Amino acid sequence: MRAHNFGAGPCALPLDVLEEVAAELTDFNGTGMSLLELSHRSKDYEAVHMGTIETLRRVAAVPDGFDILFIQGGATMQFAMVPINLLAPSERAGVIVSGSWGKKALSDGSKHGHLVAAWDGVATGYTTMPAADELGIDADWRYLHVTTNETIGGIRMVDFPETDVPLVADMSSDYLARPIEWDRYDLVYGGVQKNLAPAGMAVVFVRKSVAASPANDAANYLRYDFHANSSSLGNTPPMFPIYVMGKVLERLEERGGVAALEERSAAKAGAVYEVIDDSDGFYRSPVDPAVRSQMNVVFRLPTEELEANFVATAAENNLIGLKGHRSVGGCRASLYAALEMDSVEALVSFMEEFRAGH
Amino acid sequence: MRAHNFGAGPCALPLDVLEEVAAELTDFNGTGMSLLELSHRSKDYEAVHMGTIETLRRVAAVPDGFDILFIQGGATMQFAMVPINLLAPSERAGVIVSGSWGKKALSDGSKHGHLVAAWDGVATGYTTMPAADELGIDADWRYLHVTTNETIGGIRMVDFPETDVPLVADMSSDYLARPIEWDRYDLVYGGVQKNLAPAGMAVVFVRKSVAASPANDAANYLRYDFHANSSSLGNTPPMFPIYVMGKVLERLEERGGVAALEERSAAKAGAVYEVIDDSDGFYRSPVDPAVRSQMNVVFRLPTEELEANFVATAAENNLIGLKGHRSVGGCRASLYAALEMDSVEALVSFMEEFRAGH
Repeated sequence: MRAHNFGAGPCALPLDVLEEVAAELTDFNGTGMSLLELSHRSKDYEAVHMGTIETLRRVAAVPDGFDILFIQGGATMQFAMVPINLLAPSERAGVIVSGSWGKKALSDGSKHGHLVAAWDGVATGYTTMPAADELGIDADWRYLHVTTNETIGGIRMVDFPETDVPLVADMSSDYLARPIEWDRYDLVYGGVQKNLAPAGMAVVFVRKSVAASPANDAANYLRYDFHANSSSLGNTPPMFPIYVMGKVLERLEERGGVAALEERSAAKAGAVYEVIDDSDGFYRSPVDPAVRSQMNVVFRLPTEELEANFVATAAENNLIGLKGHRSVGGCRASLYAALEMDSVEALVSFMEEFRAGH
Repeated sequence: MRAHNFGAGPCALPLDVLEEVAAELTDFNGTGMSLLELSHRSKDYEAVHMGTIETLRRVAAVPDGFDILFIQGGATMQFAMVPINLLAPSERAGVIVSGSWGKKALSDGSKHGHLVAAWDGVATGYTTMPAADELGIDADWRYLHVTTNETIGGIRMVDFPETDVPLVADMSSDYLARPIEWDRYDLVYGGVQKNLAPAGMAVVFVRKSVAASPANDAANYLRYDFHANSSSLGNTPPMFPIYVMGKVLERLEERGGVAALEERSAAKAGAVYEVIDDSDGFYRSPVDPAVRSQMNVVFRLPTEELEANFVATAAENNLIGLKGHRSVGGCRASLYAALEMDSVEALVSFMEEFRAGH
């Protein structure tokens, strides 16, 4: 029986994609080889690779002025690469610290450039995003780094900062689940393992003029221009995630693209928040209602014992991955792109039954 | 029909591994999910991850004093990470430039530390390795970087430099096809996509004391201690290559491990070199016979037209990937671990027939 996968990532992939991958695994496209065995310079692989880039450009409406790069190391690697490539030694940039990912973007990135916290949500336990008048943005900053969704805290950036400073966004956990206002960004990145593909790389959208003029010298793998000039084929690329992502994106496009995924995400999250809000305090959302995440619904029960019971009983009912992050406790239902409404309905029913039984 | 895959990488994987992966792809271990969908913190994935590390330690006879790390970005990423972690600003290190990979280790690494060419094979077109008396090694060097096998030139390091300077080796293209003399090394690395797994990471063996004291400050993903302290689970690891590699290593172990693979590799390469040497000059090996690669057999035919004809006719006969690297031309038969003797026999027969027909 297929599990209802509420894990925070890696996460569910469309079942028909998995079935297609399995069917093609020993012989891709009549080559007599697995895609895993193809040369990355072969015509068959190149068609997959360039096809995935093209589909991504269409689905995310990526303007011509942006390169689309596949870079290994996930978002964690981008914490280093962004300042290495964008921030000259004489410059500074700001980071909105909205949770654990923003914290890492600041601390990791500070090893490679002068970063400043534009705001830090520590005082409220990272349960909200900054109001416009709380942000201290210096017009001289090279960029302002935002995290569009914090997976652990369970909050999303709804209103983006009003500033002329170019934005850089980590969108790992709501990638392509919302439109990207391209003219505000110099760079958008995210690990693919939540909404798009198996773990093993980040997709980086970078303004071509930015990629072409790195702020610091560095070895090839750490340079956006290396990846841009080679269409991410400068060394052996992570062929498998690229191939699977191509299939996932085709499904996404068939189902209405980013706008439709955004609607589905809002509907899925809305159903869970509704159970929480209608539970007379049995379930409780600890975050600012205005910035509730549509990807990671964080909630508490009256006691930690009940929370442990809830997670365990849910797992017995095939609802997997509902334990909150170890750093904050509680429960969390992650509702990434490939998690369908029937899984949400199963969760909603279970939550209602569990509440009735306790 | 299964192709005979002589590609230079990514390369063949054992067919029974591919079949097992395909069979497990939609439901791993009764979880109701694909391995691709599991949390990297789940018990099921953790067993795979730690199991692969343990198998690797056994198969490669890795001493306790070394960490085993899985790091994305392939060998190209290691060209940066080695000097960042091992080479303080006041120190220098040497690089043996034995071909295109040695060249990249030097040029890329030089962006992050003071590297010096210990020898450069450019004068002989990278067709041989340095003799002992040709090497200029400074006893003060922090390390000496060697490439154990050059895939494009088709040469291998047979005798390692005699020096007290710790060695660092790029073994991408003959990984686990020869024993590693651990006490001579501070670090051994290689992309996995030739002998071990699908593309998407390097395996890095690093002396624990070296990993624990990085020579420079850097963001987490660029630090060996980050990966070492988390058993390569500090961020979402490349789960799929790690999982497949576990299966490949089990097969390798069942078939006698590194020593047996070394013997099989010598036998496979020996059979192809024999056809070359017995061809009355029709086939010609351009490299120093003393350092002929056992992984990449490079050879020429009398004319470029014949070479093109050879490669095309071979492909019609299901012998794939025999074209030499675009930078040097000619032909190349790569004989990585999962390429079996029946493929070599098919190649040998074809080479004899082709010669007889021309």
